[in-house]
Formats: sequence, C-alpha cells, structure tokens
Amino acid sequence: MKLTILGCFSASPSSNAKPTSQVLEIANHVILIDCGENTQVELRRQKIKFSRIKQIFISHLHGDHFYGLIGLISTFSLLNRKTDLHVYGPKGIKEIILLQLKYGNAYTTFELYFHELTSAESELVFEDHKIEVHTIPLEHRVYTNGYLYKEKPGDRKLNMAQVEKYPIEVSQYNNLKKGKDVVLDDGSIIANKELTLDPLPPRSYAFCSDTKYKPDIIPLIKGVTGLYHESTFLESHVHLCEKTKHATAKQAAKIAKAAEVGLLILGHYSGRYKSLSLFKAEAEEVFDHVALAEDGKVFEFD
Amino acid sequence: MKLTILGCFSASPSSNAKPTSQVLEIANHVILIDCGENTQVELRRQKIKFSRIKQIFISHLHGDHFYGLIGLISTFSLLNRKTDLHVYGPKGIKEIILLQLKYGNAYTTFELYFHELTSAESELVFEDHKIEVHTIPLEHRVYTNGYLYKEKPGDRKLNMAQVEKYPIEVSQYNNLKKGKDVVLDDGSIIANKELTLDPLPPRSYAFCSDTKYKPDIIPLIKGVTGLYHESTFLESHVHLCEKTKHATAKQAAKIAKAAEVGLLILGHYSGRYKSLSLFKAEAEEVFDHVALAEDGKVFEFD
Repeated sequence: MKLTILGCFSASPSSNAKPTSQVLEIANHVILIDCGENTQVELRRQKIKFSRIKQIFISHLHGDHFYGLIGLISTFSLLNRKTDLHVYGPKGIKEIILLQLKYGNAYTTFELYFHELTSAESELVFEDHKIEVHTIPLEHRVYTNGYLYKEKPGDRKLNMAQVEKYPIEVSQYNNLKKGKDVVLDDGSIIANKELTLDPLPPRSYAFCSDTKYKPDIIPLIKGVTGLYHESTFLESHVHLCEKTKHATAKQAAKIAKAAEVGLLILGHYSGRYKSLSLFKAEAEEVFDHVALAEDGKVFEFD
Repeated sequence: MKLTILGCFSASPSSNAKPTSQVLEIANHVILIDCGENTQVELRRQKIKFSRIKQIFISHLHGDHFYGLIGLISTFSLLNRKTDLHVYGPKGIKEIILLQLKYGNAYTTFELYFHELTSAESELVFEDHKIEVHTIPLEHRVYTNGYLYKEKPGDRKLNMAQVEKYPIEVSQYNNLKKGKDVVLDDGSIIANKELTLDPLPPRSYAFCSDTKYKPDIIPLIKGVTGLYHESTFLESHVHLCEKTKHATAKQAAKIAKAAEVGLLILGHYSGRYKSLSLFKAEAEEVFDHVALAEDGKVFEFD
C-alpha cells in the first residue's frame, strides 16, 4: 500500500501550498482521493499514469477538494481514454461536471459513472475480491464523507517445507490457501494450520477530511494501518473549529489514539502557520506515531 | 499599455505549458482575459494584485480558457474581497459558476455581475471615459468571442512655450485640452492648434483566440497596437484547422498584415511542436512584426 500526497493545504492554492489531492495504491488499484485545482499537473509531476486511475473519490464540494476534477476529466478525453471512470462524491458532482461538458460541446471518450452519495450513515460503496471501500460520515459545513479503503484478507500462504512431507497434489493447493484441511488418500486428515502460514495482515487506509472533531468515527476506523486526519488548526486556534467545522492537530491525535491506528498523517493545514513541525509536535503530545503530509511526499505501508 | 502572458498553450495544462490567461493593463484598468486552470496561482507568481482586477473576459467555454475562473472567484471571497467583479463571457458562464457556489454552500463577499454574450455581431460591451471594449466574433467549435480593448483619444497637450506668449488664464486650459480655440480679452482668436500638441495616439489591443482563419475580423481590428492571434498549428498541419477550427501561424500573420497591426503576438500553441521558433519563422514569411507569447512574458506598448 502506497500513498502519494499531491497536495495537502487548505483553502486557496499557491505554488508551494497545493490543495487536497492524494493517490492511494492498494491491491493493484490506483485511487485518486479528492482533486483540488491543478491536480492533473501534480499527477504528471508524480509520474502517475492517468489510465491506471479508475476511481476518484471526492469528499465534499468545496473548491479546494474538487475544482480540478473537470480539468482532469477533460484531459482524459483529450488523451482519448477508453477505460471506464467511476466518480464517488456528494450529490451535485454529476450535475456540475455534466453542465460544464455540455457548454463546452464536449463528451467523454470513456464511460463516466457517477456514484452520488447522500447517506448520513457509513456505506459500503465499492467492493471487489481484493478491497472494500466504505464511507466515513464526517461533520463539516457541507455534506462530507471520508473514505475507508480496506484490503480483504489474503489467501493463506503454503508452508512448502510442511506440504512436501505429505503426498498432496498440486490441485489441492488452492483449497489449502483458502484454509481447508486436506484429506489424504488413506483417509487421514492434515489440519490446514499445519500446512500453511497466516497471510499478511490486510492493510487499510482512512481518509478523513474535512471535519470537526468527531469521535463517532473511531469504531469505523479502528486499527487502520494509516489514517489521514485533517488538522487545519493548532490548539491555539481551537476556538475557530466550531464555526469552520475543522479540527486541530491535537484532536486528530486523540482520534488516532482511540482508534489505535498504525500511523496518523496530518494535513489540510491552514496557511496561517509558519512551520508544519508545530502540528507534529502538538499531535505527538497525545499519540506516538505521527507524520506530516507534505506536497509530493510518499508513504509506503509494508 | 502592458500585457502579461500567464499562459499561452492549448489543451491540457502541464507545469511548463500553461493554459490561456493574460492580464492587460490599459488606462489604469487591470483586465483578466481568459482564465485557464490554476490562473490564480499564475497571478500570484506575476505579483498581480487580485483586488485590481475588476473585469474578467472569457472567450469561450472550453476548459483551457475558463476552468480556473471558479477557483479565482472562490479565492476572492476567501480574501474577503469587497470590490465588484464583472465577468463577460458566453451564455452559460453564470450557470456554471453559480451552480458550484450553490453546492459549496458558498457566496461571494463581493458583487458578482455576469454579462452573458450571445450575439454573432460585434458589440460594445464596456465603455467608460478612458476605454471601450468590443467583442470580436470568432469562429470556433463553440460560441467564441475575441475582445478589442481601445483607449479613447486623450486630451490635447498644452504647448506651454506657446501658451505663455499670450494672456491666457489657467481656467481656460481645460478648454484648450479639449481642442477649443481661445478668445482673448481684445477679441482676437488664437487657434487651438497653435497652443496645443497632439495627444499620444490611443493604444489598442485585440485578443483573438480560439478561431479558425477568419478574415471578417480584419476591419474590426484595423490598426491595433497589439494583436494576439491564436496559432495552434503550423502550415504543415493546416489540414487540421477545418475540423478543429483553429488557425496556423501563417494565417495569423495574414490577418495581422491585412489589418496593419503594430505587433502580432502568437500563442495557443499545440503541444505537438518541439520549438516555438517555428511559429515565429512561419509568421515572419508574411509579416514583419511578430512576437511569441510565452508563459510569464510581459509586453510593454509605449
């Protein structure tokens, strides 16, 4: 699992503070999460192949999280993309995109599917044999969802040193990987756990931005490998959180600690602060495993 | 008069090929012409003060000419702008912007006026005591206008060496500047031309992008100081012009020559060419005064 931060600042973009967008690579999926203005240029900069992106998840309809979507879709068409694209986001995203295509007398060269969200409850919005994606209802000034990406448990690994001690045919390996015991020709049963090893623990990633401090989400994100949680402010500006529906670094850390996540990644910083290290220091007062999102930074989860 | 090119490439943006946007400073107006994605960042890079921009003119509703508008408007509001903003552009621009503000539960902190255009004829769309702005109907795949910005003739200049030879009171200077003759107390008349000098010739700028070769525009832009004319292609790709409704460098030069403009500025280059110098060379076969638009380049017209 690999996370590339394309942009992680709040509000207006500048050349050294790009708006929210990130790419999650998980179980062969390349997923774009949020798409602030100029995301297409940042994707090129990070050499992420456009055609590998098949799903885009938009958290909410504030400009710093989606104004780059129409440009990216237009560019996909200019490049004559043929691969389907699925866009997940709040109700309204479809109308906004299609209106702009209409006035440009444009069409997409690929099938464009919108999955519009309206529920206030967590939903399973995508599933295949390798991953699941659930919404994480957040609380912001407009309808907002975070997203939880979870690998499904992988197959058990064959312990070949053990397997080869028995007359087990190759055709039975698949059953073994699925956890089944083996019945030998003489009728004896070899327990699966004697022949296989546990698979790697499934990895998971939760993206939570933008939101006020919302402990309700803790059960949803319990034990995730990586949690990106917005920290627009430091505690010195906690009084701004109620009105703006944003969180502080300390609040993000409290969520991370209670949810026992592997790594907390902070981001969505307000431009008012001179140094990002203040965010890390504040969060580390509460929780040990804290990293800072930075434009262009890559996190590998192995 | 000063022109700053923020971006001058066609189609999809990249870090070294920015989409169309330029700033014209004319008679104390700071005018934004087209607004491709990420224009707000380029405005900052060129240190153009956002609050001085009171008018934005959009040529047409293709993304590389207007996808940056909603972000710029949103940023103006985040900065708590109070100055009115006037947006000129094809019908549809208002619906697109207001829909996005609506879904963002956002409003502008300033009065936002839309002037939607539908006419196929040239219109006077703005006028004050210093400048006029006319549309230049172009021919592209969607409804498109260029824009002609013209200074009005300034006052005549007092020739003080001459004025001081006569008993002329200061209160009469304004009439002199307006071109009136002077009647002295003894009844004698001094002709205005004996006392004043011609004002500087009014400057003018025509922006023509995107369009196929359209000689109809020549009378409209006759004698302009500066002409920006799109040259998406070289003549080697002239066969693409009819379908895409774009022009070549040579065609731009033919327009410039017939209109006897002061300077032709080429731009809106297709990304297929390795060197921009080919565009200049091709245009110079037809017309002598050719310059290349480049991202970040500034033209001063004195």
